[in-house]
Amino acid sequence: MESRDTGSDAEVLVGLPPNRIETLVDGIFAVAMTILVLELHVPELAHEVSEAELVHALGHLAPQILSYASGFVILGTLWVGHHYQFHYIQRSNRALLWINLVFLLAIAFLPFVVALIGTYGAMRPACILYGATLMVAGTCLLAQWQYAAGGARRLVARSMSQEVFAAIRNRVAAGMIGYGVGLALAFVFPVASLFCYAAMPLLYLVPSRIDRHVKASG
Amino acid sequence: MESRDTGSDAEVLVGLPPNRIETLVDGIFAVAMTILVLELHVPELAHEVSEAELVHALGHLAPQILSYASGFVILGTLWVGHHYQFHYIQRSNRALLWINLVFLLAIAFLPFVVALIGTYGAMRPACILYGATLMVAGTCLLAQWQYAAGGARRLVARSMSQEVFAAIRNRVAAGMIGYGVGLALAFVFPVASLFCYAAMPLLYLVPSRIDRHVKASG
Amino acid sequence: MESRDTGSDAEVLVGLPPNRIETLVDGIFAVAMTILVLELHVPELAHEVSEAELVHALGHLAPQILSYASGFVILGTLWVGHHYQFHYIQRSNRALLWINLVFLLAIAFLPFVVALIGTYGAMRPACILYGATLMVAGTCLLAQWQYAAGGARRLVARSMSQEVFAAIRNRVAAGMIGYGVGLALAFVFPVASLFCYAAMPLLYLVPSRIDRHVKASG
Amino acid sequence: MESRDTGSDAEVLVGLPPNRIETLVDGIFAVAMTILVLELHVPELAHEVSEAELVHALGHLAPQILSYASGFVILGTLWVGHHYQFHYIQRSNRALLWINLVFLLAIAFLPFVVALIGTYGAMRPACILYGATLMVAGTCLLAQWQYAAGGARRLVARSMSQEVFAAIRNRVAAGMIGYGVGLALAFVFPVASLFCYAAMPLLYLVPSRIDRHVKASG
Repeated sequence: MESRDTGSDAEVLVGLPPNRIETLVDGIFAVAMTILVLELHVPELAHEVSEAELVHALGHLAPQILSYASGFVILGTLWVGHHYQFHYIQRSNRALLWINLVFLLAIAFLPFVVALIGTYGAMRPACILYGATLMVAGTCLLAQWQYAAGGARRLVARSMSQEVFAAIRNRVAAGMIGYGVGLALAFVFPVASLFCYAAMPLLYLVPSRIDRHVKASG
Repeated sequence: MESRDTGSDAEVLVGLPPNRIETLVDGIFAVAMTILVLELHVPELAHEVSEAELVHALGHLAPQILSYASGFVILGTLWVGHHYQFHYIQRSNRALLWINLVFLLAIAFLPFVVALIGTYGAMRPACILYGATLMVAGTCLLAQWQYAAGGARRLVARSMSQEVFAAIRNRVAAGMIGYGVGLALAFVFPVASLFCYAAMPLLYLVPSRIDRHVKASG
Repeated sequence: MESRDTGSDAEVLVGLPPNRIETLVDGIFAVAMTILVLELHVPELAHEVSEAELVHALGHLAPQILSYASGFVILGTLWVGHHYQFHYIQRSNRALLWINLVFLLAIAFLPFVVALIGTYGAMRPACILYGATLMVAGTCLLAQWQYAAGGARRLVARSMSQEVFAAIRNRVAAGMIGYGVGLALAFVFPVASLFCYAAMPLLYLVPSRIDRHVKASG
Repeated sequence: MESRDTGSDAEVLVGLPPNRIETLVDGIFAVAMTILVLELHVPELAHEVSEAELVHALGHLAPQILSYASGFVILGTLWVGHHYQFHYIQRSNRALLWINLVFLLAIAFLPFVVALIGTYGAMRPACILYGATLMVAGTCLLAQWQYAAGGARRLVARSMSQEVFAAIRNRVAAGMIGYGVGLALAFVFPVASLFCYAAMPLLYLVPSRIDRHVKASG
């Protein structure tokens, strides 16, 4: 009976417990979130610059700074979303590993996209690329959860209630709907897509069904 | 009774014990402290450079190097301040997470500010931005402690003595007073603000009331 | 008898359990994988750029983006390969440490090579350098396994079956054959070598003998 | 009696066990070792570059590549040296923290120095700066060990034998002598200093007295 809990044995990665994947994920998020700032370049002005000129130059950086702050918070919520799932994921296999590599590929790509937005602002190609990258990340999170916890509870406890499964799935799905709406907006009204992307993390300010579930079982 | 210890259940983040937040915090501090050095650019001189010219060029980097060293130590003390608090914080919730995201936003922004100071030295806008960023970081630390440990001891042990709570709160408050004085100075006498920011970490060289508390209870 | 399990005592590094090496390895992989993106530079266009021009400029980045994605996934599989081995490695000594330092030297060098490929594409010297770096990394993995687990089971459990040893060795060897073929191709038909390098990670999509071994013993 | 083992209580940092310091140290080493490679810039050649030109350009990078590899290995041995000590250090206090901050300041500064060497090679000011930075790092390691383990065994087990203490101290001291000789050479014969710095890690290839101690007690 115990052995069934380890899912399909043929898929179990020897030597790679889930927490090892988490280590790499944490490291890549920390680096990606911090190197966002490398795209904020100190203005290069003449040697004898006046105070007004410096303020003016810093003002010109405002779009980049907003882009940095928004990208940082978006990455933060994606990191939280990933950790939510790994709290429940107890086993690891080849498929989980590959889903995570693709997820991290999108995460590590975001600093480039954020820099692009900071430079070209609300231009359509940049906004589309931003939305598409976020959709890839979201799709990976949803696929991971569906694969690990859906149906046969492949990589989570068999005893996980459908409620917990659905609560986490819905949360990811809600994020994807938001980013999807943003991506659609990017085609017709690019500047609105940026507001949509930036607003999504606020969704996670409100208590979720997961919180309520925990309360009920408390 | 036990369940009361987990604070308001509706706010508990499933899957995000405090040590997960610490992992991200540690990673971002490590990256931020190390990429400070990326703003120190190797001087680009002619192919056949004389020794005197290289020394001269390195001498010109002195402000950046001082700015680097000072920013590194300031980040170090903020990191210590954060860990002090997480030694006591036993639970995590949505509010704690958001306070930490804003805190990390300021931390990851500091390399840009330090580079700005290295380039524009004691110019007022740069000094104000430095002080403001440090105040944001300090405010987050204070808010975190007040929220987690103040009053109802939301996220710490109920049994935490008022002495320990006050000792840590006062330490953060002292830091904020220092950075606040620096920020005020930045408006009227910018160069003095830099000395003030750089001197603040020295405050943490002296034993604190926390140390004395530990001694008393030892 | 117990003491024999610690291998040649004279070589045991006091204070450096294998998991400490893993910490450094994880950190360096996370940074290397994320800074790959720093070689993707936001195109610098005129102030009033048209949408078509931006799309065109992004299109020009396609080789770099492919190079980034491929390098990211290659690093990911090398990271997995390393962790596979450290799941079994229980002791650490001076030789293991040096093998790892050389391994990490190649890993940390890869972002430069990937950037070179992104810029000079299928030019022979770049393709050769890429293959050579991957061969160094692969050789370190093979040497590590042979040294730690081969023959006397120096740094792994004495009881490790020859099957497990061979399964992991063969996996690393398969990777090296692939990279070796790529390196050979680089001399005569450079562009084919890039396809070879990029395809290698797909090898790790299929279940391995390790998986089957686990199944059998399940 | 037990309480005496915690050293001078007034100095104990609540909330900062030694392993927290190690986390920051590991992170900063991983980042510093990996960003060394950022100073290797992909050569910028004309659009239609010949193979010979690319090889020529890469050949020009040889000094930077050697500087990168040497700096990487030097950082690696400093990391090992630090971990050796923290294997024994069981407590943390304010002084230990400050020694580590200064140590890390030197570590995070090394990528700049390595880049300087890569660009200006054997020029005296660069070689002196390299040696001086390494001496600061070495001095911190020696000071840390003397402070933590010397005399009163402030932060290590009271029962540590004088042999273990001396073995680790001598190892650090040997490194400092090597770097000190290099620094002295830098003033009179700069190029020799680089060989000296690069050769120092080889010292750690040979078994040490610590290994022998372990063997004897095995």
